[in-house]
Amino acid sequence: MSSTFKIIKKSSKSKARAGILTTPHGEIHTPVFMPVGTQSTVKAMTPEMVKECGAQIILANTYHLSLRPGADLINDFGGLHPWMNWKGPILTDSGGYQVFSLSNMRKITPEGVSFKSHIDGSVHHFSPKSVVELQLKFNSDILMPLDICSPHTATEQDIINDLAITHAWEKEAYLHWKSKDVQNQLFAIVQGGMFTHLRDQSIDFLTQLDFPGFALGGVSVGESRQEMETIIGHSIPKFPENKPRYVMGIGLPENLKFGIEHGVDMFDCVIPTRLARHGQAFIPGGKLTIKNEIHKKDPSPIDPTCACYCCAHYSRAYLRHLFMAKEILALTLMSIHNVHFLVQLVDKMRAGILEED
Amino acid sequence: MSSTFKIIKKSSKSKARAGILTTPHGEIHTPVFMPVGTQSTVKAMTPEMVKECGAQIILANTYHLSLRPGADLINDFGGLHPWMNWKGPILTDSGGYQVFSLSNMRKITPEGVSFKSHIDGSVHHFSPKSVVELQLKFNSDILMPLDICSPHTATEQDIINDLAITHAWEKEAYLHWKSKDVQNQLFAIVQGGMFTHLRDQSIDFLTQLDFPGFALGGVSVGESRQEMETIIGHSIPKFPENKPRYVMGIGLPENLKFGIEHGVDMFDCVIPTRLARHGQAFIPGGKLTIKNEIHKKDPSPIDPTCACYCCAHYSRAYLRHLFMAKEILALTLMSIHNVHFLVQLVDKMRAGILEED
Repeated sequence: MSSTFKIIKKSSKSKARAGILTTPHGEIHTPVFMPVGTQSTVKAMTPEMVKECGAQIILANTYHLSLRPGADLINDFGGLHPWMNWKGPILTDSGGYQVFSLSNMRKITPEGVSFKSHIDGSVHHFSPKSVVELQLKFNSDILMPLDICSPHTATEQDIINDLAITHAWEKEAYLHWKSKDVQNQLFAIVQGGMFTHLRDQSIDFLTQLDFPGFALGGVSVGESRQEMETIIGHSIPKFPENKPRYVMGIGLPENLKFGIEHGVDMFDCVIPTRLARHGQAFIPGGKLTIKNEIHKKDPSPIDPTCACYCCAHYSRAYLRHLFMAKEILALTLMSIHNVHFLVQLVDKMRAGILEED
Repeated sequence: MSSTFKIIKKSSKSKARAGILTTPHGEIHTPVFMPVGTQSTVKAMTPEMVKECGAQIILANTYHLSLRPGADLINDFGGLHPWMNWKGPILTDSGGYQVFSLSNMRKITPEGVSFKSHIDGSVHHFSPKSVVELQLKFNSDILMPLDICSPHTATEQDIINDLAITHAWEKEAYLHWKSKDVQNQLFAIVQGGMFTHLRDQSIDFLTQLDFPGFALGGVSVGESRQEMETIIGHSIPKFPENKPRYVMGIGLPENLKFGIEHGVDMFDCVIPTRLARHGQAFIPGGKLTIKNEIHKKDPSPIDPTCACYCCAHYSRAYLRHLFMAKEILALTLMSIHNVHFLVQLVDKMRAGILEED
């Protein structure tokens, strides 16, 4: 499976690299920013809008979709792609993170985790195998294994305990996936909290298995930027060179830049669409709050250097008006801009790597 | 100005007619259904989506837009068309209806109406002239005069009193508009409640003035379908033959059919987007409630005979899921379908008139 990823250029100035990852639904040029469509829709956008922003691959979420509308239903529709009208690659998160952040009851055993749905309180069980099976029902191009995403406040001993279970689960997921002999790729998730020696242990354990890709989980969970950079800078260079490297859940421009320079190939984050719904737009060097009085009469687009649909057709004044009037179109237009901004930011960094002498 | 409307075919089976109305922003093929974009956006849709539904002209609202963001601001942007990125014709309602339905304080004098904004309680004044001026600042293709939309519960004497003021206001608006010598067209609004003799009075008074078009107001205000049909059937045939005839605020399929067969050329209604936001979709012969359990696993589109973007790409099951999960895309997709449905329904009736032997 490792042949699905090809590095085509390495930077001489940093650890950055440009590559191509091949999936059943097409090639992904890395580094890549992946917009998130948790409930099988990137919030407030049509799939065509997401594609027009330059997005190559999107995420969906196993926890949410297995609870509602259910994996069997999506499977009956031929998987997530026809279900949601997205023709490109899809990566699904395992749901481990959501079990630990959304569900109000959970019980971990070596066999898996029982939890209550945040929607209706019904009790469900995830096992390493069942989570792989759910994602195969979705026909996800890239699957993630069940893991424990330890909270930022976890002690070293907590993390050691969580890591032992996570490693056993990931091995079980790997063996189950391997036995299926499918084109859908299962990535590993490295955990270990803010402890570099535990991150090393996790990398050592997981790289003994021939996962087609490796992710760094358990960052962007409340730690400082310094702590996040320490963990990324320490861990990513120890990931296999010839496999795609994915840092889960980060998307601020400064984090993307840091990650790419330290050898990360893939990123996802809800931040562009979430910020948009709160009236914030990315601009070069910062963020803009569209409700601010200063934009009331401003005929310029959010970002005059931006080529997105929103910036091509709408003024800050109009967007502010839509927000003040609580119009849904505001959320759509701002989401388009923010997704475009992050996708293009990463694409430009890729172009920079390719253009180096 | 009457030369801007041309009847190209009259039905031999009913009073229906097909025509072409020329405006500064292009031709409108009548009969026509006009989607409503009250606050300078058709709710949950981009202008491109509205156009793809076949819409030729949209409405915006003088009451709402003059309060927020303000007519001067929209004028600074070159009018409503560039402001909201809609290139086709725009009709603006005068705001009379909203003053009487939304504002919680109003005082009518022969000079106009004072009212409190429903947004911030600030006091505003509309006069027959100021309402024309506001709409010229918007650069609306079709303007409507200030009128009193009497409630359905009004007595005959109430209506007589309201009508006297409305007629004086409309004459003042007409003379002011006439003095401006602009291409933007001012239509008359016939009032008179559920009293046919008062409707006759209103038609007699207003047709003495050379308005480029005539509207029937004060329907769809709570009366029965029978009452509405009586008023439409009685009044429309007495409207000038060679001018466009517009019934304000109706959009249910049965009402559109009745109106067209009685010689109506133009319709507007918020119903397609409002129903969509409440999870209801038009289908041939009725309406469908997307949240119903029966759609949970249904792979068919809302309407298999429909050519809209929503029906081309999305199942009832997916739409139901989006609704249950409170996803914004549900509102956009359902709005597309409903606007397309009504626009195409009227277009098909027009084609039927043209195809008669």
